[in-house]
Amino acid sequence: MNAAVVDVTGNVAGQAESPIDRTRPPRDLLREDVARVVLDAMTVAGVERRAVRGVGMGLPGNIDRRRGVCRFSPNFRWHDVEVARPLEEALDLSVFLLNDVRSHTLGEMQFGAGRGVRSLAMLALGTGIGGGLVVNGRLIEGAHSAGGELGHITVDPLGPRCGCGNRGCVEALASGPAIVRAVAELAEVGGATGILALAGSLEAVTPAHVTQAARDGDVDALSILSEAGRWLGVAIATVLTAIDPERVLIGGGVGQAGELLLVPARREVARRCRMIRASETPIVAAQLGQEAGVLGAAALALESVGLLPGLLDASHTA
Amino acid sequence: MNAAVVDVTGNVAGQAESPIDRTRPPRDLLREDVARVVLDAMTVAGVERRAVRGVGMGLPGNIDRRRGVCRFSPNFRWHDVEVARPLEEALDLSVFLLNDVRSHTLGEMQFGAGRGVRSLAMLALGTGIGGGLVVNGRLIEGAHSAGGELGHITVDPLGPRCGCGNRGCVEALASGPAIVRAVAELAEVGGATGILALAGSLEAVTPAHVTQAARDGDVDALSILSEAGRWLGVAIATVLTAIDPERVLIGGGVGQAGELLLVPARREVARRCRMIRASETPIVAAQLGQEAGVLGAAALALESVGLLPGLLDASHTA
Repeated sequence: MNAAVVDVTGNVAGQAESPIDRTRPPRDLLREDVARVVLDAMTVAGVERRAVRGVGMGLPGNIDRRRGVCRFSPNFRWHDVEVARPLEEALDLSVFLLNDVRSHTLGEMQFGAGRGVRSLAMLALGTGIGGGLVVNGRLIEGAHSAGGELGHITVDPLGPRCGCGNRGCVEALASGPAIVRAVAELAEVGGATGILALAGSLEAVTPAHVTQAARDGDVDALSILSEAGRWLGVAIATVLTAIDPERVLIGGGVGQAGELLLVPARREVARRCRMIRASETPIVAAQLGQEAGVLGAAALALESVGLLPGLLDASHTA
Repeated sequence: MNAAVVDVTGNVAGQAESPIDRTRPPRDLLREDVARVVLDAMTVAGVERRAVRGVGMGLPGNIDRRRGVCRFSPNFRWHDVEVARPLEEALDLSVFLLNDVRSHTLGEMQFGAGRGVRSLAMLALGTGIGGGLVVNGRLIEGAHSAGGELGHITVDPLGPRCGCGNRGCVEALASGPAIVRAVAELAEVGGATGILALAGSLEAVTPAHVTQAARDGDVDALSILSEAGRWLGVAIATVLTAIDPERVLIGGGVGQAGELLLVPARREVARRCRMIRASETPIVAAQLGQEAGVLGAAALALESVGLLPGLLDASHTA
């Protein structure tokens, strides 16, 4: 986990990081470890707590923003865990909680590749595929905080099993683990030798090795990323058809493959979005990169305390 | 086409209808035939033109609401046709134009099965599958007026060709023509005899015959509707995952099959939406039925003139 002190312009004044001990009880993790890294960031930035207006926090999983509760997080194996309150008590500061990729989406809207539009779809490719949607100038949060969960769009109804229980989610076909599994399948039949040479062994292969091999012209690697990109394109075509946003952003670690994924994705979108002009919609890389997490959380906090114009739906809040 | 005089409570004071001559130039059709049926409805209702606050109009196709232009309508083979202005000139009344199913969605929100929610997905099953989405209390119109075009969600990437040029759109698998095609495919191998007996001949088969046969227990008919319902469920699962609305409405002529489609659709949604609680979302029949067209158009006009609280995004209007 990392924490940063961020001002209203998105300037990072100081950062701190710390490993996460997932075996600790959530309450202890929050009150001690998480509070510690937040205070460390303030120390590094040379900013006192009373100068801080609020704390934003992005967390993978299904998050009830209004109650500050993590309903379910597969990463932490948490169910209905109160997150905001223990941290608020430890820090004596207001804490605002949101799904990490929805928070990243807010960050791109305020500080990144989403500036100047009123609607946006974001897909963050990593160990899973997270998403976020902004429409009519507001984040789509959804009736069960699932709005924007674009990684679980079905792109192949009989496709591989996804971690969520469904089959053929785009996450099961274009996430980091899906790309690594495609390498393993080629390795089984004597292929992917260039990627294996780069990684040292099959067990060591990461999506970054596949990207590197593809950049070096390795045909297996190019083919794997191209197929992932096409599945991504099927999901994007559905988003363009259903939502028709002004722009689509692709982020996350696996998104670093850039045009190697985006070119086949754009081709697939052009094939599938024909009647409507949504195929003209720019599909581009997200901009915040490594700082997506902290800038997204900062955007969340800045909006929640009223320092930035709101992208969140305020209608249900007290 | 039909026209109605509707008050702010959704009460229909009078209606008129007329066949559409698609061979007429759009300008003549609008200034003469359409204007005539609107004036006829006023006569039937006993309402004078000066008592009418505005005219709403739902039209299949891609509609630029702000310019009152039909960008593309496959039904009429229109491209970039000015619709609102000729009718305004002929009637001396303000005319508001929207895609027919988006207009139907507004109608369900104001007068039907969408009352009391702030987010809703609507699918209208007919010769195509139209759609509409309301999120955060606003219709999703989209950057190219394609927002809510749920019939073109890809549910089977290698599925049958859709009229739009894509493959495996839900429209290509669960619309009226898709259901009739499924009958023809069974008939080719000597099946669907119950449906054929009911319709008289293969050429005469409509989705209503399939529904009737299924209600009578015909296994082929039940199977065809069940498969269409499952494909519908794949699309709904994607909508729940991406948007997470409070409610899903199924309307249109083919939607009259009701639970014969909705039960398999709900099963498919339950199989596919597991991680998130969106599978708890009610998937129910739309309520406006035969009057969906005129009540939708009325909701559009009533909102546009400020007589009903707005569901349209007003931010870009002058």
